[in-house]
Amino acid sequence: MAVYTDVSDGELTRFVADYDLGAVLACKGIAEGVENSNYLIQTERASFILTLYEKRVKEADLPFFLGLMEHLAARGFSCPTPIKARDGGVLRRLCGRPAVLISFLEGLWPRTVEPFHCAGVGDALARFHLAGADFPMRRANDLSLPGWHRLVDATRARADEVAPGLARELATELAALEAAWPRDLPTGVCHADLFPDNVFFRDEAVSGVIDFYFACTEALAYDLAICLNAWCFDDEARFNPVKATALVQAYQARRPLSEAERRALPILARGSALRFLLTRLYDWLNQQPGALVRPKDPREYLQKLRFHRTVRHAEDYGL
Amino acid sequence: MAVYTDVSDGELTRFVADYDLGAVLACKGIAEGVENSNYLIQTERASFILTLYEKRVKEADLPFFLGLMEHLAARGFSCPTPIKARDGGVLRRLCGRPAVLISFLEGLWPRTVEPFHCAGVGDALARFHLAGADFPMRRANDLSLPGWHRLVDATRARADEVAPGLARELATELAALEAAWPRDLPTGVCHADLFPDNVFFRDEAVSGVIDFYFACTEALAYDLAICLNAWCFDDEARFNPVKATALVQAYQARRPLSEAERRALPILARGSALRFLLTRLYDWLNQQPGALVRPKDPREYLQKLRFHRTVRHAEDYGL
Repeated sequence: MAVYTDVSDGELTRFVADYDLGAVLACKGIAEGVENSNYLIQTERASFILTLYEKRVKEADLPFFLGLMEHLAARGFSCPTPIKARDGGVLRRLCGRPAVLISFLEGLWPRTVEPFHCAGVGDALARFHLAGADFPMRRANDLSLPGWHRLVDATRARADEVAPGLARELATELAALEAAWPRDLPTGVCHADLFPDNVFFRDEAVSGVIDFYFACTEALAYDLAICLNAWCFDDEARFNPVKATALVQAYQARRPLSEAERRALPILARGSALRFLLTRLYDWLNQQPGALVRPKDPREYLQKLRFHRTVRHAEDYGL
Repeated sequence: MAVYTDVSDGELTRFVADYDLGAVLACKGIAEGVENSNYLIQTERASFILTLYEKRVKEADLPFFLGLMEHLAARGFSCPTPIKARDGGVLRRLCGRPAVLISFLEGLWPRTVEPFHCAGVGDALARFHLAGADFPMRRANDLSLPGWHRLVDATRARADEVAPGLARELATELAALEAAWPRDLPTGVCHADLFPDNVFFRDEAVSGVIDFYFACTEALAYDLAICLNAWCFDDEARFNPVKATALVQAYQARRPLSEAERRALPILARGSALRFLLTRLYDWLNQQPGALVRPKDPREYLQKLRFHRTVRHAEDYGL
């Protein structure tokens, strides 16, 4: 939970005056979110989210993220839309940081995941992939194999503080994935971070998807593998086949997986488990004193990774 | 900034169903606030604040705080009002904690204080004191002389880590205040924490006051002394007489100070500076690993305290 940049009332009033939204009635820093500072702004017109991009988001990537939101919204996919200022621009500056106002999305994200949520997210992910199919911009996934190498190197010396033998296990896993990684699956825009706190529901239906700041051009089935990890395990990191079946079947009802994608699913699931294991491990080992965000326990993803190593066939995931 | 208790979507939906407010459309944890967990809830009816009381607020004090809000609102003082559930009650439970829904107050709190803000808060404080005059409940101020004694004792061993000689300075100050503390000033309900983040403005006028969780029965002029400390110093903790004059004159326009209150103001200002110095010092020395709130620098209030020791007459504050 975090608001890294404190926006003064004067700065905010001047910022919003560049839009056609009426006066600011209220502004609250939002506790959710790790990478950026977010405020919920109420103006005479409506509610909006004000996002200030902190240093973990590269400014050069912002046109991709904002363009993607506009592209998806134009195709009827429910997600926040950047609001245009009077001069027609969406990316502005506030408190020395890149900043945007985006539309406010109703709905609640599920703290406790039920199978119907998994079906909802499977369907939404497929719609996301289809809506993004003709998005013309590209962005490399900087948390794929080369990024994992960097994180394995950066955590090697102290990984065993988190679990005995972890440094060696990570090196072995990375070598195995390097050898077996599928290179010719269908690619497209992936969300790449579709965790429960990024999917809003109303009355058991998905009302929208937020947080596109890991989106990248990647194998589409890898995005599904991320969702398997994020949605289909219980609180003790035990795999739940009912949820996985709901997720995968809802996805396939909109976008059937190719045979190559099905075969690749176990290895993609290992890769995505390794990806979150490594970033959580790095954050765990590099906690800043006074940080406002509690790092997440990396061992949750170690357990998930070990589960996926026991999976031999995509059928084990409910396909 | 803090949300200590994570409320699930299911728990929230069931909680709000006990009110006549329609369905929940959105819920965001609010980064502001130190003592309690606060969520901004949007329902089909309106926006509300959901507060869950964490352990720093005593449950036995809640009827005083909630009763005060209702009392003030009934007298036209703009502040959040507890919302009644269908059964007529306002204090309920959520996630094992006492919880209330309160009305949402528009306005922005001033990050940069200008003299007009000080005039606004002086006027609002006097209106608060007048509106609270017939509030029948009482609550002792647990951060007055006996409370300061406890905090001086609890910080003595390590106070000098923050400033050389601080432990001795605190003991001397406390003894001086004990000897000189006025005992027969007019008392009533004080807000006792009227800092800029608790006063909302719209278009240069106060739109409301929030956060009554330090309110207590206390000398009314002590509340004004707290505001002198909170509103009338610059970022380097230097006293600003223009702001102090604006604050005190606006207060007196509604509620003129008695001669005894005027004479007592310098000592009350020292006392209130010591109060915030001590609680900040205690929090600074007792930081919890993984805490979500950055402790405030106690030395700001040491500097203010030292300033007030140089003041001989209330005229120095602009009276």
